Amino acid sequence: MVKELMHQLPDEHIIYLGDTAHVPYGIKSPATIIKLTLDNILFLLKQNVKLIVVACNTASSLALDVVRRHFRIPIIGVIQPGVKQAVKLTKTKCIGVIGTRATINSRAYEKQIKSIDSAIKVTSQACPLFVPLVEEGWDNQPETITIAKRYLMPLNKRSKKMDTLILGCTHYPLLKSIIRDVMGGNIRLIDSAQQVAREAGEILNNQKSKKSKLRFNNRCRFYVTDEPEQFAHQAVRFLGCRISQVRKITNV
Amino acid sequence: MVKELMHQLPDEHIIYLGDTAHVPYGIKSPATIIKLTLDNILFLLKQNVKLIVVACNTASSLALDVVRRHFRIPIIGVIQPGVKQAVKLTKTKCIGVIGTRATINSRAYEKQIKSIDSAIKVTSQACPLFVPLVEEGWDNQPETITIAKRYLMPLNKRSKKMDTLILGCTHYPLLKSIIRDVMGGNIRLIDSAQQVAREAGEILNNQKSKKSKLRFNNRCRFYVTDEPEQFAHQAVRFLGCRISQVRKITNV
Repeated sequence: MVKELMHQLPDEHIIYLGDTAHVPYGIKSPATIIKLTLDNILFLLKQNVKLIVVACNTASSLALDVVRRHFRIPIIGVIQPGVKQAVKLTKTKCIGVIGTRATINSRAYEKQIKSIDSAIKVTSQACPLFVPLVEEGWDNQPETITIAKRYLMPLNKRSKKMDTLILGCTHYPLLKSIIRDVMGGNIRLIDSAQQVAREAGEILNNQKSKKSKLRFNNRCRFYVTDEPEQFAHQAVRFLGCRISQVRKITNV
Repeated sequence: MVKELMHQLPDEHIIYLGDTAHVPYGIKSPATIIKLTLDNILFLLKQNVKLIVVACNTASSLALDVVRRHFRIPIIGVIQPGVKQAVKLTKTKCIGVIGTRATINSRAYEKQIKSIDSAIKVTSQACPLFVPLVEEGWDNQPETITIAKRYLMPLNKRSKKMDTLILGCTHYPLLKSIIRDVMGGNIRLIDSAQQVAREAGEILNNQKSKKSKLRFNNRCRFYVTDEPEQFAHQAVRFLGCRISQVRKITNV
């Protein structure tokens, strides 16, 4: 997501907050996820940002409505942009969604898709082991292929016409090649990052002050709530670049 | 652990606190784990308990020294009891330890074993996917066997004489049969629960008031910090019994 935002919005500064003290969100209750999302947004507001991206599917599914009600700042989630793209691209009107247990149980994707086109068939599958597998660094290992088959092959069977699959978790794009292998070459995989960055660009273009007001040398500033070294280590895989400094904030 | 405490201490009441809002501890920093353990102990003290068991290997590894320094109440961790048993039972003087990344990185088991007998060879292996696999309910699935092989076979190779393996995480006893299959029939698996319950019994016997002062009907009272329904659902597998009531406390 950060990579895509940097690519599409070259004039903007980015403040990234990773709530590493509370991951994974996917196994928590809606009330807890809302509380944590509010805390994260309050921190970002103090940094004088102009727009917030909730770059987590679980938080977007469960907390976006509430936080939008509280704050005036534009807040973009990852559900709607992914859905828009999927609905535009599907020809068979059969869309699949994979995500954490919390995201799938919330039925946020299904509701959003049906609100645009109620004729679309939505088939969902929670894949709780995908996040730990990615965090273990097993993106391309045989064990991950076996587990992907177990989660995804029943999905394929349940909806034979499915031509579009939404990767409903920010970790899943790292498993793209495995997911494509299991699902077959004709499936279109939707990663919402591009569409999110596009929408962020449109909102910022309509705002009066186009240029970022933030004053620091690097374009990105990274904050986490725990384990900054481990985050910096993992960031290479997620962002495709090295991070020089990760700051830890106290938010536990 | 609770099962064993109930079995060995039939006259005592038990108050269980599961910090489900913050699991897994195994990926967090020492500072965060200490802060969370202190919060949990403060809650239990308010319930008027006479003894506390820190029934988590990660918290025992990283927070026990600090919390013991702060509080007068007897606090039992799970590292020392497991180590005592392993040291007593090993004949080859080669002990293996498996646990979360935080537990293994802390080297708590190794230090404890060496402090009793410096001649013992200790070989350790972090198994980060075991907890998510157990939580997915895949205790006896082929995927879990494959992953267990990947973690444990190198351990076997690194220490051919190993005759004792400490299950250094409260989730791992649910994988006992798989671990035994991979490690071979001659290995002795150490689950610290029995020894912890024995030590708790000894301390309580030496205290003046033997009988519990707690006043409630059920012998166990269960509190969690998030998702009480999911905890009640999972408890059947961990405790071997159904739980009628799980209370949620606000501690996030």
